[in-house]
Amino acid sequence: MTEKMKNKEIPYKIYLSEDELPAQYYNVRADMKTKPAPLLNPETLRPLKAEELEPIFCRELVRQELDNDTKFIDIPQKIQDFYRMYRPSPLVRAYCLEEKLETPAKIYYKFEGNNTSGSHKLNSAIAQAYYAKKQGLKGVTTETGAGQWGTALSMACAYFGLDLKVFMVRVSYEQKPFRREVMRTYGASVTPSPSEETAVGRKILAEHPGTGGSLGCAISEAVEVATQSEGYRYVLGSVLNQVLLHQTVIGLETKTALDKYGIKPDMIIGCAGGGSNLGGLISPFAGEKLRGEADYDIVAVEPESCPSFTRGRFAYDFCDTGMICPLAKMYTLGSGFIPSPDHAGGLRFHGMSTILSQLYHDGLMRAVSVGQTEVFAAAEEFARVEGILPAPESAHAIKVAIDEAKKCKETGEEKTIVFGLTGTGYFDMTAYQKFNDGAMTDHVPTDDELLAGFSKLPVVE
Amino acid sequence: MTEKMKNKEIPYKIYLSEDELPAQYYNVRADMKTKPAPLLNPETLRPLKAEELEPIFCRELVRQELDNDTKFIDIPQKIQDFYRMYRPSPLVRAYCLEEKLETPAKIYYKFEGNNTSGSHKLNSAIAQAYYAKKQGLKGVTTETGAGQWGTALSMACAYFGLDLKVFMVRVSYEQKPFRREVMRTYGASVTPSPSEETAVGRKILAEHPGTGGSLGCAISEAVEVATQSEGYRYVLGSVLNQVLLHQTVIGLETKTALDKYGIKPDMIIGCAGGGSNLGGLISPFAGEKLRGEADYDIVAVEPESCPSFTRGRFAYDFCDTGMICPLAKMYTLGSGFIPSPDHAGGLRFHGMSTILSQLYHDGLMRAVSVGQTEVFAAAEEFARVEGILPAPESAHAIKVAIDEAKKCKETGEEKTIVFGLTGTGYFDMTAYQKFNDGAMTDHVPTDDELLAGFSKLPVVE
Repeated sequence: MTEKMKNKEIPYKIYLSEDELPAQYYNVRADMKTKPAPLLNPETLRPLKAEELEPIFCRELVRQELDNDTKFIDIPQKIQDFYRMYRPSPLVRAYCLEEKLETPAKIYYKFEGNNTSGSHKLNSAIAQAYYAKKQGLKGVTTETGAGQWGTALSMACAYFGLDLKVFMVRVSYEQKPFRREVMRTYGASVTPSPSEETAVGRKILAEHPGTGGSLGCAISEAVEVATQSEGYRYVLGSVLNQVLLHQTVIGLETKTALDKYGIKPDMIIGCAGGGSNLGGLISPFAGEKLRGEADYDIVAVEPESCPSFTRGRFAYDFCDTGMICPLAKMYTLGSGFIPSPDHAGGLRFHGMSTILSQLYHDGLMRAVSVGQTEVFAAAEEFARVEGILPAPESAHAIKVAIDEAKKCKETGEEKTIVFGLTGTGYFDMTAYQKFNDGAMTDHVPTDDELLAGFSKLPVVE
Repeated sequence: MTEKMKNKEIPYKIYLSEDELPAQYYNVRADMKTKPAPLLNPETLRPLKAEELEPIFCRELVRQELDNDTKFIDIPQKIQDFYRMYRPSPLVRAYCLEEKLETPAKIYYKFEGNNTSGSHKLNSAIAQAYYAKKQGLKGVTTETGAGQWGTALSMACAYFGLDLKVFMVRVSYEQKPFRREVMRTYGASVTPSPSEETAVGRKILAEHPGTGGSLGCAISEAVEVATQSEGYRYVLGSVLNQVLLHQTVIGLETKTALDKYGIKPDMIIGCAGGGSNLGGLISPFAGEKLRGEADYDIVAVEPESCPSFTRGRFAYDFCDTGMICPLAKMYTLGSGFIPSPDHAGGLRFHGMSTILSQLYHDGLMRAVSVGQTEVFAAAEEFARVEGILPAPESAHAIKVAIDEAKKCKETGEEKTIVFGLTGTGYFDMTAYQKFNDGAMTDHVPTDDELLAGFSKLPVVE
């Protein structure tokens, strides 16, 4: 036990009381001088209007998607009630990891894995299911990669009695059969994507026989089914402004917990796939930065096999492989980019949230990419001292937090590092087995592979 | 939302602060007028002395095992520190389940699943690993059924740098390959039991070729390896007095949380395999009952496929199938009893904690048995409203809690029901899949099957 632990005035876990939980989402767009670029209609290349989005998305969610001005948006009571079943999530002081690393840094992580979906995804799933129910819909469709979003949404739909059809990226479907069963237990139907059930799925299968699929493909299929079924809408677990909005409960709770103990973080680190966890975690902190009230080193961590921030282009692109979705201005590898099937878990999306893309473009955050094997090594090191077996996605943030804490050991700096531990790895044991067996590989796309993706970016003035 | 939820003065989840966590274990034996019968040496049929047990178990744990008098036993600081990584566990008010059932009952559950082992088992694992480390041992051996205990112990051994060899009941080893990988990630070696690695394993395999194994077999193998390896001891995750002692953190936290809000439970319900969760949960309440300070309806729930309380004999028996372990006086189905391989999850042990057996015999608690299919139906109903996907073991308690809440609906009684939700079912998706597919079966042993088991009970005066 270190001196720090003996004399600790900060508990191992900071739990807010239920009356300290946020009653409003925080919309960081309201504080951004340069707003994220609007979604474009892929045919007219003009900004999409609410009425064009409403055949795809729920009405209230479209409103949230397009609202760049309202700073705080009330969380409906029913959503707050559901949050109370599994929130607040703890802000954990990683005393044991600090001791292991012999670092003067103070490390905290916001742990979102203590619910059956195993991740932060439930925060937005329940909100989206609520608005679908409120609109009187029969059901929703969605895609899922690692399966966390699909699981979360199946829980949310079970709670509100909505029908749910999930298109699951085929490589995850095969690696994670138990995820499928959790979704079924909650009453969802699950189809591996690309599938023969949709026109876009059949097209992708014809072009890429035997493909392991991608989030982009699965999105195309889910959107096709939603728009062609009466009483259905499509919901998405990441990337969109509305999703980042719902996920701000992570950052708001984190900030309240830190403030309660007078802790001022130096760094905020989060893994980045589509950006939902990262955006949710950092929004309140980025807001302070935007308003000039505080400064933080905000770091996005992405896999080197799918490096949208660090090697992507900031350009308008399709959100889906099938090119039927709106165009978003974002850091992207091209909507045709499909990460290597060797890459485990989520963080497989070719693009990035438009909000985060704009913040990154404007220098409000930075990004690093890390290799898969070193990420699993960090995951194992973390698990053995902190007890929690992390999701591979979350382990990207762990890797960089550990690196930064080691730098502090060298420099003697007592930095306060906060990272997002988005979820647990219980359904990722196929990947852990590969790592345990020493059979894990790393994949870095070549420049040519990336150029091929960029060459297909749509031309937008 | 019900009126109860709108006017709730009780939060959804009661979290104690870290300074409210127990600093001492409570030893219910000190309050028992009739002490649990002592363990006997299977050769001499005389009560085992400490020096006879020390070649098998760690010294300090032997002391705890034999101590019927010390009412409170200090929890070493290092164990308390580890507890703070994942405790307190929440005491949850099941508002959503109450609403679904339209019951006037108030339902609470103590949820032990928010740690990577997925269950309460970690409470004793970390204590046993601590004492093994303190004694300067190289490592420990153990058995695991559903895999929760093995996972918990692998986490604890990784934390203290101890070697760990796990014998895993073969049917679980096959049904739960991912559990094996979690244990490996924490550095443990895992062998399916019965195995060819031990004399007792080879004997059992010769007598029962193709057997799915049982906890009793696995215990025999682990004990054989521990006693024949220098610097190793055997540790057990249930049944023993020491384990129930460590698990009293569950009951102590529950009682503190209830007292904090002035809640007086009418019923305490827990699932019973070897008795560790149930014993830990009920100890403080049984203590009050023993001291005549309060009355509670305490209910053990067991599977009808392994009904030690409801159809077993109260007699001295071996704790293991190989008949090399001490004799314990307990409710037992005979050490040769192996539950049907159709039975999912844990709760497969042929006997029951001697402490609980004595309490049951003395009328301080009652027991009911439930069928597997109805248990999974209760699990699904619970998961869909309360969000948590329960372990099959835990779902036994859920089933009876729901039944009792339904009775309250009929009678109008506003009973306060507390049950133990011991863990999560993330590694039980093979069983859930069977249930989802309508392919689950129930197995009730015939009287003849039980008589065959009883006929082999050792004769002890």
